[in-house]
Amino acid sequence: MHIRVINPNTTRAMTDTIGSAAKAVASPGTLITASQPSCGPVSIESHFDEAVSAVGVLEEVLAGERDADGKGADAYIIACFGDPGLNAARELTRAPVIGIAEAAFHVASLISTRFSVVTTLPRTAIIAEHLLDSYGFSHSCRKVRAADIPVLELEDNPDLALQLIIEECLRAKREDNIGAIVLGCGGMADLTPQITEAVGLPIVEGVTAAVKLAEAVVGLGLGTSKFGDLAFPLPKPFSGSFARYSNLTLD
Amino acid sequence: MHIRVINPNTTRAMTDTIGSAAKAVASPGTLITASQPSCGPVSIESHFDEAVSAVGVLEEVLAGERDADGKGADAYIIACFGDPGLNAARELTRAPVIGIAEAAFHVASLISTRFSVVTTLPRTAIIAEHLLDSYGFSHSCRKVRAADIPVLELEDNPDLALQLIIEECLRAKREDNIGAIVLGCGGMADLTPQITEAVGLPIVEGVTAAVKLAEAVVGLGLGTSKFGDLAFPLPKPFSGSFARYSNLTLD
Amino acid sequence: MHIRVINPNTTRAMTDTIGSAAKAVASPGTLITASQPSCGPVSIESHFDEAVSAVGVLEEVLAGERDADGKGADAYIIACFGDPGLNAARELTRAPVIGIAEAAFHVASLISTRFSVVTTLPRTAIIAEHLLDSYGFSHSCRKVRAADIPVLELEDNPDLALQLIIEECLRAKREDNIGAIVLGCGGMADLTPQITEAVGLPIVEGVTAAVKLAEAVVGLGLGTSKFGDLAFPLPKPFSGSFARYSNLTLD
Amino acid sequence: MHIRVINPNTTRAMTDTIGSAAKAVASPGTLITASQPSCGPVSIESHFDEAVSAVGVLEEVLAGERDADGKGADAYIIACFGDPGLNAARELTRAPVIGIAEAAFHVASLISTRFSVVTTLPRTAIIAEHLLDSYGFSHSCRKVRAADIPVLELEDNPDLALQLIIEECLRAKREDNIGAIVLGCGGMADLTPQITEAVGLPIVEGVTAAVKLAEAVVGLGLGTSKFGDLAFPLPKPFSGSFARYSNLTLD
Amino acid sequence: MHIRVINPNTTRAMTDTIGSAAKAVASPGTLITASQPSCGPVSIESHFDEAVSAVGVLEEVLAGERDADGKGADAYIIACFGDPGLNAARELTRAPVIGIAEAAFHVASLISTRFSVVTTLPRTAIIAEHLLDSYGFSHSCRKVRAADIPVLELEDNPDLALQLIIEECLRAKREDNIGAIVLGCGGMADLTPQITEAVGLPIVEGVTAAVKLAEAVVGLGLGTSKFGDLAFPLPKPFSGSFARYSNLTLD
Amino acid sequence: MHIRVINPNTTRAMTDTIGSAAKAVASPGTLITASQPSCGPVSIESHFDEAVSAVGVLEEVLAGERDADGKGADAYIIACFGDPGLNAARELTRAPVIGIAEAAFHVASLISTRFSVVTTLPRTAIIAEHLLDSYGFSHSCRKVRAADIPVLELEDNPDLALQLIIEECLRAKREDNIGAIVLGCGGMADLTPQITEAVGLPIVEGVTAAVKLAEAVVGLGLGTSKFGDLAFPLPKPFSGSFARYSNLTLD
Repeated sequence: MHIRVINPNTTRAMTDTIGSAAKAVASPGTLITASQPSCGPVSIESHFDEAVSAVGVLEEVLAGERDADGKGADAYIIACFGDPGLNAARELTRAPVIGIAEAAFHVASLISTRFSVVTTLPRTAIIAEHLLDSYGFSHSCRKVRAADIPVLELEDNPDLALQLIIEECLRAKREDNIGAIVLGCGGMADLTPQITEAVGLPIVEGVTAAVKLAEAVVGLGLGTSKFGDLAFPLPKPFSGSFARYSNLTLD
Repeated sequence: MHIRVINPNTTRAMTDTIGSAAKAVASPGTLITASQPSCGPVSIESHFDEAVSAVGVLEEVLAGERDADGKGADAYIIACFGDPGLNAARELTRAPVIGIAEAAFHVASLISTRFSVVTTLPRTAIIAEHLLDSYGFSHSCRKVRAADIPVLELEDNPDLALQLIIEECLRAKREDNIGAIVLGCGGMADLTPQITEAVGLPIVEGVTAAVKLAEAVVGLGLGTSKFGDLAFPLPKPFSGSFARYSNLTLD
Repeated sequence: MHIRVINPNTTRAMTDTIGSAAKAVASPGTLITASQPSCGPVSIESHFDEAVSAVGVLEEVLAGERDADGKGADAYIIACFGDPGLNAARELTRAPVIGIAEAAFHVASLISTRFSVVTTLPRTAIIAEHLLDSYGFSHSCRKVRAADIPVLELEDNPDLALQLIIEECLRAKREDNIGAIVLGCGGMADLTPQITEAVGLPIVEGVTAAVKLAEAVVGLGLGTSKFGDLAFPLPKPFSGSFARYSNLTLD
Repeated sequence: MHIRVINPNTTRAMTDTIGSAAKAVASPGTLITASQPSCGPVSIESHFDEAVSAVGVLEEVLAGERDADGKGADAYIIACFGDPGLNAARELTRAPVIGIAEAAFHVASLISTRFSVVTTLPRTAIIAEHLLDSYGFSHSCRKVRAADIPVLELEDNPDLALQLIIEECLRAKREDNIGAIVLGCGGMADLTPQITEAVGLPIVEGVTAAVKLAEAVVGLGLGTSKFGDLAFPLPKPFSGSFARYSNLTLD
Repeated sequence: MHIRVINPNTTRAMTDTIGSAAKAVASPGTLITASQPSCGPVSIESHFDEAVSAVGVLEEVLAGERDADGKGADAYIIACFGDPGLNAARELTRAPVIGIAEAAFHVASLISTRFSVVTTLPRTAIIAEHLLDSYGFSHSCRKVRAADIPVLELEDNPDLALQLIIEECLRAKREDNIGAIVLGCGGMADLTPQITEAVGLPIVEGVTAAVKLAEAVVGLGLGTSKFGDLAFPLPKPFSGSFARYSNLTLD
Repeated sequence: MHIRVINPNTTRAMTDTIGSAAKAVASPGTLITASQPSCGPVSIESHFDEAVSAVGVLEEVLAGERDADGKGADAYIIACFGDPGLNAARELTRAPVIGIAEAAFHVASLISTRFSVVTTLPRTAIIAEHLLDSYGFSHSCRKVRAADIPVLELEDNPDLALQLIIEECLRAKREDNIGAIVLGCGGMADLTPQITEAVGLPIVEGVTAAVKLAEAVVGLGLGTSKFGDLAFPLPKPFSGSFARYSNLTLD
């Protein structure tokens, strides 16, 4: 099974972090390839960053579908906690496409009845709230908390970032009456073991969660439904810098 | 007051339709300019089309902000019923940005307690349902109905399209116990008078609704909040075909 | 366009405040007349006050409909934050009828994704919560806060009232992770500029918001739907002090 | 225990119907008095009728509070399915005040997990939906159905009315996968036995349900909370035809 | 009328407490018998305790149905705040079956628009939240609070327990902007008068509430619907220690 | 990895069906053992059957925990679509416990945005609705449909049962505007391939879904949280036929 993990931002170091985390939990027969788009923001911390990065995500899925053997990947993971381009990406493939935010929410709700989310910036906290609402998990989430760390601090100043995240997680443990914590940023993927040890609560991280859910769906012989709103997009002309999408035939 | 109406698809005939409809309801002091991006799909009928068109929407907003006098437009309208790129576009400007789906839902809920939506394709019907949920209007909407018309049929085969829309509206009137109907596609903007006359219920159309709501917000001296998740995006490097977004300074 | 702004309480000074605020934002062609009923409470701070004041609101709408030229007003505004008698008033006219609470919620949700409400008394705070639930805006509102000011203090002790409101708004700004604040009382209508300046967040005030939404709906050629539950009431006998409502023919 | 059953409309025959139904289920020690206001509509079939009738309801509660011995009634029932003036009436007394719609919903949810409502007119059906939402029972209600009978037909043409109601109830039984039916009009209070027999499902009627809930609350030594938004209204001046409410001292 | 009050745990002292509380509010013609199962936990403080105690509840209902005269009890009360086995018990009888949590929520919502719950342990607080969601009362409940008392402390150390409960109730009164408090444990049934006096807010207790609601439903001639999911269970073989349930004929 | 699949009913043939389905999707390193309790109903078609079967489920989990090596199973699956005893079972173990209804809902929402459920009997359809509400998936489910087949018909009359299920699935495909169908009964586990082929939509079956989700959670090094309401139950005395649960020490 080949799972393509797409880092929607263009910071290769973060791709490596994400790829390593993914490989660490992949099953024996699973091949993980991690990549990032050639175009887009170095980090995703706003609706604007998300909207632009969605194009990079779609590029990577299309690249996956056109791979060597013409068979495409068996599953795709969108490794940014805002799940940018999720439903659009799903339209492009029969393979399952899993966002790391949804993956973390699904897994957290299987091991606890109430969880909190610890993310980076207050403004991305609101984005996480939108996702909880839209996926139907808001009743299971006590609180979305921001540790107030710019995403790239996770790369540039990892010790301080780790400390701030652990402190916010400990506050959540003390105050929120919860069973688990969801880490709200793909860039935290490699910190899970340290945070788990320091916090003493189950910590659910989205990249790893998405790998296992992708394996699960593929293992069931299932993939993105091609009925309803996730069917392949109708082929049509695109113009300008998107002319390459004209008359896509994906089926 | 200058309102830029952005047709997120690249079909100029539809831009004209939308622009005319917008001008028809604009107040005396309001200047309407309608444009479409240089890149993107000819019509928007899927999550994929929406995600790609969001970039065109952002381009148009950035163009609006950089206009001649450096003052930017006073308001922006996103004239596709999926409201593509709405929150991302809001981050780029102090001006209000209004989506035509949200505009139509707001207005319909001011003149009726229950409405139905009549849109083009079943798959875009689901997208409208997502928006109703996410905006908080789902309790006011009885049903999202699809007349089963590809968007460009509105341009290419207007008589048949009109007939099918009217038939679906009449079914909604008979069966849904409603006070109003929302037209679920920007391309229907010029058909409102005929549909209204044929159906005999208040018909709410999003482009025109958005023009009046934009005038309203501007008239209040308000604009997109620059606090919370709609603040200007943090300036940062972008790479590849999006390098032009690097270190945007919008404030 | 003639908009009748109805102050549901009987305090003429508050009518003047509300009328001035309305005129300050009205478009050039809009005539604002502000009035209060001849019967009812001097201020509205309870469900009881609201229920009684609803009759005054209906009187004013009926008066508006019977005006000189028999044409009625083009729109009505109910200028109390509990929106007393809103749906009842809507039944009496083809014109749009806008409550200031709903107007403020609509506008706040167009310029921010999360807002808080600052109102007068804790018991009216709960009334605002009921409205948020019933209109579908509760997911967008972080918190309804009460500055603990009796409504008429706004007239009698304006400096202290202003200071208390500003302090509560600043607490909301610090603690609620919001993009905007809704002022929860018609009597605050003239304080918006000062509050805006002191607080530094977009402040949405209902009277002004309602004027612009009323202009918007009228500008669209729309009005209250006469289908469904907002149709004209069935003519029928009324007795006692309400005998004047017998066999109303409004159509 | 003295329960005052208030018929919010002014049709004495309906008061008698309601009073008889109430007496038929009252416990031995319970005194039922049924009355109707001296002012108001002969039937309640619209938001307008409801808003006006709320004043009559408040009058009747105030009359009840001032009764002979100065002790007031032990409980009040608002016997119209729209529960007009419910929270306002609650503010006026320490006694419990029960609306017949809420009473019926409470009881139906104690004997079934899903019920439907059968009411008179389509426009009052929407009012019932608003109440279900606002009370939190909408997930338990499959459908609000209208038998399309003007309220006074229940008095004027009882045989036809009964037949239409039974037919709609039987449709609900066949189609809705429910355990019980709620009758959505106080004027149906005396028809419950016949409908029950003809339909063969538990039929919950609001007047009778409210009597038993009122007895229950009184029997617990409880009454309307005087904390929060149901506290006595602040005494204040009222003008015009409502001057009699000035400086009410109810405590 | 004979109401069987079932204490789902096996602590006879608690059965006595519950029985006394029930008798204290029962109407003259009501016979209360209180019992506990012969099998099960001494207290119910977890999902596990609840699942096991549900069997004891069902045993007691079956015993009630087989009573002397073959007529069964007129109503059953499940006197644990988690309402264990509620819908299962309902299937076994035509009599109404009332859980004390639901009873308390119903009554609290008749006398206030917002209430808080004060229960024993944090982990049972979450169970109360699940019930509020599932019954549709979560919008009326401000907060579920735990006084952090093991259930049997209510028997073993009643003075301390009472003090802790009162302190938590007073915190709720100060902080939650509520009209009433629901006591979240059957073992608190005899403390209601003292708590009410110390707290000065209406205190709703479930055992007593359930007695009065049971009398209400029986007084209406209603009982558990035998249509839909509460119909008698299909007779079928059971094996092992549950073989006694084989081919139950209850009708 | 050892996954214990618990058939909550006592029909060994159904255990075999479920076990085979589970094995068919298990990963190479996964050992599946399927068992059923020694006590309980032969099929689960009511709240009563569910409540009783929950005890059998708990027995099987306790047996799993006490296994030979004292290490317990790595995961448990509750293979009845009502997820009987789910949270109670979770309290007994550090391993994940997955219900097949929740598993199917999670997977269906990863591959489609809207699905319908096809179950056996109308009364179990309502149970499925309760689960959808309680898990937060009701907005993703269009309709719960019953094919009107008693559970054991799946064993006794498989051809007819298969035909009825396929017919109901085809109706769902035609009428519900969905992307996937969830099969609502563990006894359908072996029919998935035939139904998938006949219906031509993705068919999600709970037993197989639960196996893959269990593998996923275990693969993440996660298990049921021992914080909050899923912590081990407090040890305490149990009496009568449940005395064996006294002072359970599970940690």
